[in-house]
Amino acid sequence: MQATVLDKQLSFLREIDRLKTVVRQSPLLDNSRKENSAEHSWHLAMYALLLNEYAGGSVNTHRVVQMLLLHDVVEIDAGDFPIHDESSSNSQAEEESEAAKRLFGLLPQQQGNEFLALWREFESAETEDAKFAKALDRFQPLLVNVFTSGGTWKENDVSLEQVFSRYGPVIQRGAPLLWDVCEQWVTQHFSEQASRASGLQKGDKE
Amino acid sequence: MQATVLDKQLSFLREIDRLKTVVRQSPLLDNSRKENSAEHSWHLAMYALLLNEYAGGSVNTHRVVQMLLLHDVVEIDAGDFPIHDESSSNSQAEEESEAAKRLFGLLPQQQGNEFLALWREFESAETEDAKFAKALDRFQPLLVNVFTSGGTWKENDVSLEQVFSRYGPVIQRGAPLLWDVCEQWVTQHFSEQASRASGLQKGDKE
Ligand SMILES: [Ca+2]
Repeated sequence: MQATVLDKQLSFLREIDRLKTVVRQSPLLDNSRKENSAEHSWHLAMYALLLNEYAGGSVNTHRVVQMLLLHDVVEIDAGDFPIHDESSSNSQAEEESEAAKRLFGLLPQQQGNEFLALWREFESAETEDAKFAKALDRFQPLLVNVFTSGGTWKENDVSLEQVFSRYGPVIQRGAPLLWDVCEQWVTQHFSEQASRASGLQKGDKE
Repeated sequence: MQATVLDKQLSFLREIDRLKTVVRQSPLLDNSRKENSAEHSWHLAMYALLLNEYAGGSVNTHRVVQMLLLHDVVEIDAGDFPIHDESSSNSQAEEESEAAKRLFGLLPQQQGNEFLALWREFESAETEDAKFAKALDRFQPLLVNVFTSGGTWKENDVSLEQVFSRYGPVIQRGAPLLWDVCEQWVTQHFSEQASRASGLQKGDKE
């Protein structure tokens, strides 16, 4: 009996090894390559451990960490949907929901149901824990873009207004103090970009 | 004031991005490349969430997860020391201890001290939480070798006896039920290897 339970747990742990091969849009900070979703999940869990004091509401850090550790496993079937890709968000939700059922369905039933419930709670972003987890999941790639002088914003020609609308509401809702800091960084980043561009233009004319 | 605390937290979170570039001996299960220590840490945290029922003693899963998330950050300075490399374990311990002081020293003092204490608890492997965390840190690469038909054991010409002595005590101490299963896998793996080798020899002679 014990063996069967363990077999199921190990087949899940074996299957999710594939998350290490799902490549995201964001680069590593040293720009050597793109980040994968497994190491991204590790990093987010560290964010949650360190930054829980900035949560908008009262949160259970262990639950937040769990959500962040498992939130991306659906990408094993559904792939990563980049924030700056505006296509097809309905089919995305459906694919991810199917993926969650298949993957968590590999586990012993009770454990699988618990994980599925946590994943759905994260997706719905209504509880304090989920709102904070979602905020961190937006905050980390924003930071990467700030630290790499533009990153995916440059690549995708994203404007200040788009950054504000794509990251702002989620971060502000779950971690308002972090959004205050983000606003400053983002504003500064785009004003530096603008002055660099106008400097180049001047240079061209002279 | 708040900004200074956050600045320190972010400088730590930024620094540990480098764990994604520390390459381990173990391959991914699809053998496409070697695993890095950040994604290894993510995977171990998932092991802890799922397999806590196999802990030898009574454990606090949140603390176990925290230990596993941060246990390898010292490799950013000290590098990964492979289990099958028998050189210099004294200088290793010293380098890792210095690394822990430097890295956790980037954090606000109280948080840095908490993390340093957790890391030292993991290293000492005396509490139930640390014993279980250590057991998982040995169990995962053993599984990878079983799943990849030998992996680093083949590469390093490791014998059955060496596997038993290098993995056994740590896994048995923190997760005895998991070690029972490991013993079966390892015995089976090496007996298959032996019969394949003798089959080859026979083939050679015929
Ligand atoms: Ca390790």
